[in-house]
Amino acid sequence: MIDTPTLVDQYCHGVLRTELGLGTFEAHLGRTAGPPAPGTTFFDTQTGFAVRRWCPPLLDLEPHCPPARYLARRRELGVLESGRRLLRGSGISTYLVDTGLPGDLTGPREIAAAGSAEAREIVRLELLAEQVADTSGTVEGFLANLAEAVHGAAASAVAFTSVAAVGHGLALAPEPPGPGEVRGAAGRWLAGRQVGGRLTDPVLVRHLLWIAVASGLPLQLHVGVEDPMLLTGFAAATSGLGTDLVLLHGYPNHRHAAHLASVFPHVYADLGPALVHTGARAAAVLAEILELAPFGKLLFSSGAHGLPELHVVGARIFREALGLVLGGWVGDGAWARADAERVAGMIAAGNARRVYALPDA
Amino acid sequence: MIDTPTLVDQYCHGVLRTELGLGTFEAHLGRTAGPPAPGTTFFDTQTGFAVRRWCPPLLDLEPHCPPARYLARRRELGVLESGRRLLRGSGISTYLVDTGLPGDLTGPREIAAAGSAEAREIVRLELLAEQVADTSGTVEGFLANLAEAVHGAAASAVAFTSVAAVGHGLALAPEPPGPGEVRGAAGRWLAGRQVGGRLTDPVLVRHLLWIAVASGLPLQLHVGVEDPMLLTGFAAATSGLGTDLVLLHGYPNHRHAAHLASVFPHVYADLGPALVHTGARAAAVLAEILELAPFGKLLFSSGAHGLPELHVVGARIFREALGLVLGGWVGDGAWARADAERVAGMIAAGNARRVYALPDA
Amino acid sequence: MIDTPTLVDQYCHGVLRTELGLGTFEAHLGRTAGPPAPGTTFFDTQTGFAVRRWCPPLLDLEPHCPPARYLARRRELGVLESGRRLLRGSGISTYLVDTGLPGDLTGPREIAAAGSAEAREIVRLELLAEQVADTSGTVEGFLANLAEAVHGAAASAVAFTSVAAVGHGLALAPEPPGPGEVRGAAGRWLAGRQVGGRLTDPVLVRHLLWIAVASGLPLQLHVGVEDPMLLTGFAAATSGLGTDLVLLHGYPNHRHAAHLASVFPHVYADLGPALVHTGARAAAVLAEILELAPFGKLLFSSGAHGLPELHVVGARIFREALGLVLGGWVGDGAWARADAERVAGMIAAGNARRVYALPDA
Repeated sequence: MIDTPTLVDQYCHGVLRTELGLGTFEAHLGRTAGPPAPGTTFFDTQTGFAVRRWCPPLLDLEPHCPPARYLARRRELGVLESGRRLLRGSGISTYLVDTGLPGDLTGPREIAAAGSAEAREIVRLELLAEQVADTSGTVEGFLANLAEAVHGAAASAVAFTSVAAVGHGLALAPEPPGPGEVRGAAGRWLAGRQVGGRLTDPVLVRHLLWIAVASGLPLQLHVGVEDPMLLTGFAAATSGLGTDLVLLHGYPNHRHAAHLASVFPHVYADLGPALVHTGARAAAVLAEILELAPFGKLLFSSGAHGLPELHVVGARIFREALGLVLGGWVGDGAWARADAERVAGMIAAGNARRVYALPDA
Repeated sequence: MIDTPTLVDQYCHGVLRTELGLGTFEAHLGRTAGPPAPGTTFFDTQTGFAVRRWCPPLLDLEPHCPPARYLARRRELGVLESGRRLLRGSGISTYLVDTGLPGDLTGPREIAAAGSAEAREIVRLELLAEQVADTSGTVEGFLANLAEAVHGAAASAVAFTSVAAVGHGLALAPEPPGPGEVRGAAGRWLAGRQVGGRLTDPVLVRHLLWIAVASGLPLQLHVGVEDPMLLTGFAAATSGLGTDLVLLHGYPNHRHAAHLASVFPHVYADLGPALVHTGARAAAVLAEILELAPFGKLLFSSGAHGLPELHVVGARIFREALGLVLGGWVGDGAWARADAERVAGMIAAGNARRVYALPDA
Repeated sequence: MIDTPTLVDQYCHGVLRTELGLGTFEAHLGRTAGPPAPGTTFFDTQTGFAVRRWCPPLLDLEPHCPPARYLARRRELGVLESGRRLLRGSGISTYLVDTGLPGDLTGPREIAAAGSAEAREIVRLELLAEQVADTSGTVEGFLANLAEAVHGAAASAVAFTSVAAVGHGLALAPEPPGPGEVRGAAGRWLAGRQVGGRLTDPVLVRHLLWIAVASGLPLQLHVGVEDPMLLTGFAAATSGLGTDLVLLHGYPNHRHAAHLASVFPHVYADLGPALVHTGARAAAVLAEILELAPFGKLLFSSGAHGLPELHVVGARIFREALGLVLGGWVGDGAWARADAERVAGMIAAGNARRVYALPDA
């Protein structure tokens, strides 16, 4: 087994401030907004089993105890105390927090305090644009305020993130849209939009991404189940500009994400949520990502949202999987031990510290 | 090792009633209608090796004995007796049989008798439509008879299945086609068609699928090597209607099939033929399917066609692979033993009994 | 462990004749033309670690010694002597060499001499066409010379190879283009082209491929990261014509490449570069290819280019991975030992000897 240092979680969200019952807790284990199929439960998933493996001991229970017992103990301790125990037991020393999701979620400062860790903010571009639209009167005002808002955010944020990039924008055209095209799209969007309306217009999404690229801050792109190869054109267009692209959540196309990280110097690949979702299979999935990606191009994250249990599971699964995979290669003679330890430190924290210009631990 | 109960084979075909020689037997091991490449044999495949591993002992021979010896013993026992021995040695207690393939194949009753098991019928929609077309004189008559035939079949069948859905219909548009569109397509198809002509018209395929959805019976869609993500629109369009969709044969895109099963409550994933085709690799492939799919959404099948050996291989490979994979996770501490046994029972039989409303064993 | 005989490397390039420094050596370990990302090195890749594992002992050093020490020893021995030691230590007895890449690379005769092996030439179709264009004055002359050049090359070459086929030609249309279409495309290409200009015109690429098909020589198609399923139409169109197609470099879509090899008798799948790029993961990747592909349809290659280290790594990784995977299946009882040894020999050399009509070892 190869040991890893404390972790930089390069992409996660805050945790809920409210007490949770069995049903509301279970809802956060599923991958969909609706209820589970009749006769099934989201506890019967790799994520559910991983939560039951790793979290009960942090609340003084046996691993794999029944969900109802775990939830009872969680309420007994209270949401604050259980959150503190869980986050402090995760092994994460720095959280980079996407603050762009709705809900009563803790922000970077609260996570840092609860977890006795550092935390920095990731700004979600679509939300920023929607907020600017809510307060801008004209197309010209909107576009000027948007550029200012992005550059203002870049002064304090550690990265930008976009969820609409792959599905709504870059799949169609990688280049920045022309000024007339942008004004036309902005006019149509603002005219048809009510306060709170979401940004999915492909021209505006591309415009927004290119403003972000100009800021020089790393830009995280949510790949999800889309084909990462759709980003080939954008990666080529942004090559050499000095802005790094980080592909988030590439599973099950993580080998293609790793390919892009291997052919573009400024492209990096995230490997967190793939591990949380695959649980007992995390070592196998991690090993697949380690095939093509240069070891300096991989970044750990938990992708956790809402439950501190998901930060714990992301971190514990990652450390165990990395130790098993690299330790196995050392055992086979395929890797030297010193190299394995060095690579473990790079993926766990060192690469993220370099890419996001974080201070050394 | 985790043990599994007797199996529900949720998708298979009948077996040939005729004696087979080495060449006709070998032809059923290939994945193509033609002969193998010069200098090669379909016995030199994972399926061929798996047949040679699991079947000879059921006919009193050594595992891995030469194919010619196995075929000689099979003929010595006769097609009936060898079929009985094989099916009864498979561990399958319920067969759901797609009766829509041509050839001198046994039907559900004969399989049940030979295998000392239960059997139910799956109706293939395209064949049903072709049979209706063979006996309908006008477009109006055809469309009325088609609706009646589907609803009639729903009274006795346990599920519908479609092979044309992904490639010919749903990839283009997920919604039900309008009545004028359907009449036009039916008119063109009937006019151009000879008795026995196949249904691949995308409009009629979609029309047929939506009639089947209205019946409420589970609808099995053959994914094959197509991209299961092409079904995203249809899954969204049928969500909440009360009809389950079962994705058949998703390998090598089985992780995408598992993704759909994880985000749509009414979508299920099949894992049989992937195991038969990959043989010694079945545990690894099964483990991949178990990454994202909720454990209540996976269904065993053999996908066997023509040779009872394929029912045996599907069932034996599945049981061994499931035992290895789940047993390994219990050994690692990733899963609790009681959970593993419960999940094994769900995938082997329980999920299928619930989805197809089969009586308990 | 299953042992393999000496290997036929069914696709590789020559090695550089010049001495290399640390930087020029490292550049050949990356998958891109540019430098590695700031703060990273191409030595920190599976390929880099594999070179450090397998090559130092052939130059009297410890495995995993630092790159600078290895390069110093390499220069001390000289490029000729180190190349001889490396190639002779690879276990390759026959090299099939694609001579179509630029650079000061050794040809088949020099590789044969240095490696104490046999070597044969693979002709790259695009380069052949570009050379013909450089010396042809008219469209008619170009087309006549092109046909003559391909048929002339077929007399001595062992195979043709095309890099543009998937991306630039066959993805659009599988059939041979008509004569008028070809003349038009040739006229436009020749008129717009300067000496040395590359051939990527889809019509001319397809024309060239169909001339090559007519020669009867095996045709190797570079799949790269493209989807091998794009070749389905071309595979169907060339089925039964007597010319074999070999899919090169299918990772990470190697399971789809294996699928095509399993459904078309004349389609073969290569597995070399996938192993060189994935290093410590090679056994896992090889096992995936062995799922669907008939064992008579798989061919070893190193895909090596420039560094004899890459021939060594390709061959050593392959032998170790094949021994582990097949040996594991024998240990499980899934395969018989005699079958495993036979299959190892087929993939290592036998299949290539049959497909390329090479004399027995």
